[in-house]
Amino acid sequence: MDAMQELLTRAKAAAPHLAMLSTKEKNNALLHMAKRLREGAEEILAANREDVAAAKEKLGSVMVDRLALSEARIEAMAKGIEDVVSLADPVGLIGEEIVRPNGLQITRVSVPLGVIAIIYESRPNVTSDAAALCLKSGNVCILRGGKDAFHTSYTIVNILRRALAECGLSEDFVSMPQDTSRESAARLMAAVDYVDALIPRGGAGLIRACVEQARVPCIQTGTGICHIYVDAEADPSMALSIVENAKTSRPSVCNAAEVCLVHAAVASEFLPRLKARLVDDRRAAGLVPVELRLDPRAAAIIDGMPAGEQDFDTEFLDYVLAVRVVDTVEDAIAHIAAHSTHHSEAIVTANGETAARFTRAVDSAAVYHNASTRFTDGGEFGLGCEIGISTQKLHARGPMGLRELTSYKYIVRGNGQVR
Amino acid sequence: MDAMQELLTRAKAAAPHLAMLSTKEKNNALLHMAKRLREGAEEILAANREDVAAAKEKLGSVMVDRLALSEARIEAMAKGIEDVVSLADPVGLIGEEIVRPNGLQITRVSVPLGVIAIIYESRPNVTSDAAALCLKSGNVCILRGGKDAFHTSYTIVNILRRALAECGLSEDFVSMPQDTSRESAARLMAAVDYVDALIPRGGAGLIRACVEQARVPCIQTGTGICHIYVDAEADPSMALSIVENAKTSRPSVCNAAEVCLVHAAVASEFLPRLKARLVDDRRAAGLVPVELRLDPRAAAIIDGMPAGEQDFDTEFLDYVLAVRVVDTVEDAIAHIAAHSTHHSEAIVTANGETAARFTRAVDSAAVYHNASTRFTDGGEFGLGCEIGISTQKLHARGPMGLRELTSYKYIVRGNGQVR
Repeated sequence: MDAMQELLTRAKAAAPHLAMLSTKEKNNALLHMAKRLREGAEEILAANREDVAAAKEKLGSVMVDRLALSEARIEAMAKGIEDVVSLADPVGLIGEEIVRPNGLQITRVSVPLGVIAIIYESRPNVTSDAAALCLKSGNVCILRGGKDAFHTSYTIVNILRRALAECGLSEDFVSMPQDTSRESAARLMAAVDYVDALIPRGGAGLIRACVEQARVPCIQTGTGICHIYVDAEADPSMALSIVENAKTSRPSVCNAAEVCLVHAAVASEFLPRLKARLVDDRRAAGLVPVELRLDPRAAAIIDGMPAGEQDFDTEFLDYVLAVRVVDTVEDAIAHIAAHSTHHSEAIVTANGETAARFTRAVDSAAVYHNASTRFTDGGEFGLGCEIGISTQKLHARGPMGLRELTSYKYIVRGNGQVR
Repeated sequence: MDAMQELLTRAKAAAPHLAMLSTKEKNNALLHMAKRLREGAEEILAANREDVAAAKEKLGSVMVDRLALSEARIEAMAKGIEDVVSLADPVGLIGEEIVRPNGLQITRVSVPLGVIAIIYESRPNVTSDAAALCLKSGNVCILRGGKDAFHTSYTIVNILRRALAECGLSEDFVSMPQDTSRESAARLMAAVDYVDALIPRGGAGLIRACVEQARVPCIQTGTGICHIYVDAEADPSMALSIVENAKTSRPSVCNAAEVCLVHAAVASEFLPRLKARLVDDRRAAGLVPVELRLDPRAAAIIDGMPAGEQDFDTEFLDYVLAVRVVDTVEDAIAHIAAHSTHHSEAIVTANGETAARFTRAVDSAAVYHNASTRFTDGGEFGLGCEIGISTQKLHARGPMGLRELTSYKYIVRGNGQVR
């Protein structure tokens, strides 16, 4: 048995024990994990310095920033684990009780998924976040972190495992393969009978690789080509502030907007204001101006780069916004159906009927009326946390909190019924 | 564009139209489909005679039986469609309403999955059942039936498509590839961006092929190695009748029992009665006797074949029952954890605590106390129908009714909120 097979076998064997823990046992373990993480700050920072030094040789400064830890970031990780303690236990909830004419009593009860594999990239805080969410929801987790953050993540995992053992629990509730090759990710993707759900967290390439290769059930997360449609009846100030927020408050995240669709009736008035707000005002204020990529009708009204063939199908994750003029809300809906990744879209309009038409017809995880797409987030939705944002429709859609890390079973009580 | 690509493209294009239909429009279409199916009985029977004639050359009589239609079977198919009319529409249901401190109103609403592909084998009634369930739940369906039933199924699909067109709806709500090669199934499994969910219905080989090859989200269905555990405190008459029912009432289905575990304290009393009931009484009554495959401890008490290495990991789907003696309920739970396909298991006991321990610890879609595993079925659970029984934990578990053919989206209403 090689190291990966042993890890899988131990994870599977641990799952029934974790599934049977009480809420109190899980919460005590989480509190102890947070304590040990704080106490292990020096050990984690030492490992992190190794990763950062290696990263500086080959990665850009944004990636190094994402990777670098500080006392404050470790404190935030510990606090993140403690926050999970206060969330309601999603396991053992009764979803439904049916009594059948033959007297059978059927109860639908929430249960953990079992073993969850998470394949992610270089953010070290994903390690502790994911471990805490999986533990609270009764799931064993296998964390397959990226190579660039390996020393950091592995140190965090070892601290969490020691904390579990100190609570008299199995270390195997949380584990991480030492092998960070593509092969180890591929092994997890193919671990039918061992992995109940695979959640990739990272860029489009990682998600695509999981969707293409996974033989275990996989939840597609993340990629967001999000649209804001500014209707003929939009309040222009509201529209400007929503587009600005959705594009510029944090362009690197999946709920940032990439495309603005503007109704033809207001385009000649709205687009110059949009350009002023996103380009000229920002430049004047010393902020990064947004690069506008314009379809021919928008380009006839304001200056900007002509949109290329791919610009309406690209998750820029940057200060870039594609702009197109449309004639009707139906055209906006059709454009979104053809180009969206089904993450988040918004309409800005004062017309309730137009808004209802849009929110009903647009097939995305979150559809907004008069608000920024940036709210698609577990915390902002009130879930208290999130393990990712699903862009598929099976199992879970949108922000995935603790409930989305559970399945259910039917318990059926009888007195000898046969069929 | 080849035929399969055209079919996929048309199905995807039709999905938003079907999703927007009212309950009344869907019900009217279903009633008309049932009417046309009845009127098309002669056309269907003619096609079926072709399939049956070809099947007789190469298939066994059980398979030919499964394939052969009669007026009565077509009437049952039409009635099945009409039954779906009376079920509640699962689309547009509000699951949750949250008002956030910033005033955002978040509503979780059920929506269709989109395009569902169903790969199945030779039962022609699956064609009309699946089409009706998908239509009612707002889903476009692509039905990829088996080669042996192709003429029958294709004729049924064409009747249903004509009925849709006569209602002014798109024929593309229901379609079937003309190509019944493995290649066409493989194309559906790989149709990322076109197929939102793949549901295989059939034997273990088909299910395995889908799990191995599918790149679209797939729901594993069907395979059932179901266990009955007869506890030390079981009422022996109840236990006998449950084991007999679970094994012999319909051995070819997935919720039939394959394994009986008996507590050592009652084995010497219970096993001779089990043998009398399943073997001797049945033989005397001219029924097929059950072949018992015994572990060494059971073989020391009654006569029967010694169990081979694979007998506790085989879905016999036949009059065969593997029998093992265990020392405790924990041993029964451990045996089930190691050998079950997580479909349905039962405990027979008068002890409520033992039952609670078993139902909590056993990780299967349906866990029974004092009832036969044969009740794991959409109809028996009161769902009114079923498209399959999920043995995985993502999305749906156990019998899948209309609700399990939906996803959800979040509609978020604001008045200009930005983050």
